[in-house]
Amino acid sequence: MRKKYVMAPGPTPIPAEVLAEASMPIIHHRTPQFQAIFKAAHEGLQMLFRTKQPVMTFASVGTGVMESAVANLTSPGEKVLVASSGHFGNRWKDICQVFGVQAELFESEWGQPVDPEEVRKRLKASPDIKLVFTTLNETSTGVVNDIQALAKAAHEAGALIVVDAISGLGAMPCETDAWGIDVILSGSQKGFMIPPGLGFVCAQPKAVEKTKTAKNPRYYFSYDKALKKLTEEKMPDTPFTPAISLVIQLKKALEIIKEEGVENVWKRHAGLAKATRAGVEALGLKLFAPKAPSAALTSVIAPAGIDSGLINKTFRDTYGISIAGGQGKEKGKIFRIGHLGYVDGSDVLLGVATLEMVMHKVGHKVPLGTGVKAAQEILLVENL
Amino acid sequence: MRKKYVMAPGPTPIPAEVLAEASMPIIHHRTPQFQAIFKAAHEGLQMLFRTKQPVMTFASVGTGVMESAVANLTSPGEKVLVASSGHFGNRWKDICQVFGVQAELFESEWGQPVDPEEVRKRLKASPDIKLVFTTLNETSTGVVNDIQALAKAAHEAGALIVVDAISGLGAMPCETDAWGIDVILSGSQKGFMIPPGLGFVCAQPKAVEKTKTAKNPRYYFSYDKALKKLTEEKMPDTPFTPAISLVIQLKKALEIIKEEGVENVWKRHAGLAKATRAGVEALGLKLFAPKAPSAALTSVIAPAGIDSGLINKTFRDTYGISIAGGQGKEKGKIFRIGHLGYVDGSDVLLGVATLEMVMHKVGHKVPLGTGVKAAQEILLVENL
Repeated sequence: MRKKYVMAPGPTPIPAEVLAEASMPIIHHRTPQFQAIFKAAHEGLQMLFRTKQPVMTFASVGTGVMESAVANLTSPGEKVLVASSGHFGNRWKDICQVFGVQAELFESEWGQPVDPEEVRKRLKASPDIKLVFTTLNETSTGVVNDIQALAKAAHEAGALIVVDAISGLGAMPCETDAWGIDVILSGSQKGFMIPPGLGFVCAQPKAVEKTKTAKNPRYYFSYDKALKKLTEEKMPDTPFTPAISLVIQLKKALEIIKEEGVENVWKRHAGLAKATRAGVEALGLKLFAPKAPSAALTSVIAPAGIDSGLINKTFRDTYGISIAGGQGKEKGKIFRIGHLGYVDGSDVLLGVATLEMVMHKVGHKVPLGTGVKAAQEILLVENL
Repeated sequence: MRKKYVMAPGPTPIPAEVLAEASMPIIHHRTPQFQAIFKAAHEGLQMLFRTKQPVMTFASVGTGVMESAVANLTSPGEKVLVASSGHFGNRWKDICQVFGVQAELFESEWGQPVDPEEVRKRLKASPDIKLVFTTLNETSTGVVNDIQALAKAAHEAGALIVVDAISGLGAMPCETDAWGIDVILSGSQKGFMIPPGLGFVCAQPKAVEKTKTAKNPRYYFSYDKALKKLTEEKMPDTPFTPAISLVIQLKKALEIIKEEGVENVWKRHAGLAKATRAGVEALGLKLFAPKAPSAALTSVIAPAGIDSGLINKTFRDTYGISIAGGQGKEKGKIFRIGHLGYVDGSDVLLGVATLEMVMHKVGHKVPLGTGVKAAQEILLVENL
């Protein structure tokens, strides 16, 4: 017997009461009963996005809503800047290329955040760029970008900023309205604590205005259609059938988040991340992103001579815990421990204790209990 | 206390054992455990699609996979034929327009199927058309199109045929390979007996060939990416995070379908539809689509002077049963009773008996029990 745990930066663990919602009989979406659920979920989304704007919900995973931003905001031939700090940031460029958009890629060293000063310079050098795509939490490297500073740099150049907050939203401060994020998007299997299958997008009026002249094609992901249904009728609605069971789970999960309070949720993630990093470093392991480490996951460099895939596999096959490996050019070199969504101090204790066990199994002996002690000290201070 | 029932042509009722799957703890998608589930689900999809080709799964509802067909198969300026028999057929034209495709719309009278002879004539008159979009089961009117004949007409003209089988697949004969359907797509909340949020697409090699020269943009819905992940590795996989919980439910639902046998599932739907029609007609009500009635739903004309919305509302608010109203130009004029997916003779008995009650409530007295008797006679003969 071996219990199963998910400690990945998505999908994340789901509270039992949220899982239970999906086992209730299906209801039709064009009913007052579902409309009330959708309205409550929508208010919860506005709370988590920290916005007064409508938040669109699509039946899609994160990449679909990334594509939606390109399709709704750009025209073929347009020049844009992609400010990337890794695998998912680079995806913006791939999508732009498919849509005939000229994406200038500015990629930070992996493990480092994007430097807002550099973005400012690039925008000054290319005054025809009026759109910047970037990432809040780069899941592939465990780095957080300074979105407030990046938004400022974009706005100074008269550009709009589009932020992939798929794995970051809910785990760390992100102020859609206060920071002036023009378009922000996220996905359900991350800080939302529900299964994958929903994508969310919030666009400020200026961005909505830009969609009106943007020529790239979109139908399923049309912001115009989605916003009309969301705002022009008595009850918020969707243009096409919503993913009913996931929306019902979303409503429930957002109630749990509301009860804790969004700022407390951020604080919890920050504390758990700090404890995880302390545990990892106490074992003599090196953090991959020490400069701007994510509150959602901790990326760790595998000891010399050990393939990080083996660490990953041992976590999973010997101890029943799904963590994540390296992606793109860091495949085999780093491993990533998620502490995102429905996680608390117990998860960190278990994660760090298991990391010590795994290190022994893969032949990299560490002093047992040392990482746990370091994590405990932080958790005690943070009351987690 | 009033029990709730869904008798709509989507979402459809979900077996309790399929609902229960969604309340199991989430698992990570990049694990041997999930890969085995995805492989089994994929084999089930091939069974239901009656194909040896790979069947792609997207986190999306039906409209998204309709868009995927246009995005993957067409180029701006291309001429295509849309053979429509109602609201959802016409959606093909809307999507084509967004993608700069010149769609010639041939729309049958609502309530009538598309005449394959007419399609043949149109293709002869426009030999530059090499792509036909149509619908297996037109949900808005309750009509079934003769896809075998339409495919033949398209192929005679050297054109490919794309079939929206969203609400039809699983409820009625549809032979992807044997009829030579070049592209066929469906959605999860219909014959599949799971919640909305998955879209499926199967493309024959000739259609895959056409995607290679098709210039419209696609990334999230790229067939090239999806097919590579589905076929080029040891285990079938997806390019982006799958909607894990829905895929797990899909696997379970397809096991239930396999146990009954696909042809028996078709036969059951045909018998239930026949019994429903007999019940409706015995009450003196007129069928909206008597010529080619669907096995998935029965569309009925509301008696003169009665808004079909009131019938719909009375079903729902007084008797706890969600049926469907008219769409587009039939709004207020027809109502639609679904018998799709997880339905049996008991559902038909309840549906027809409730229809009698509703008719009394809305002031259109019918002889109580008469419809039920007519339905019972069919169910006895059909052993349902």
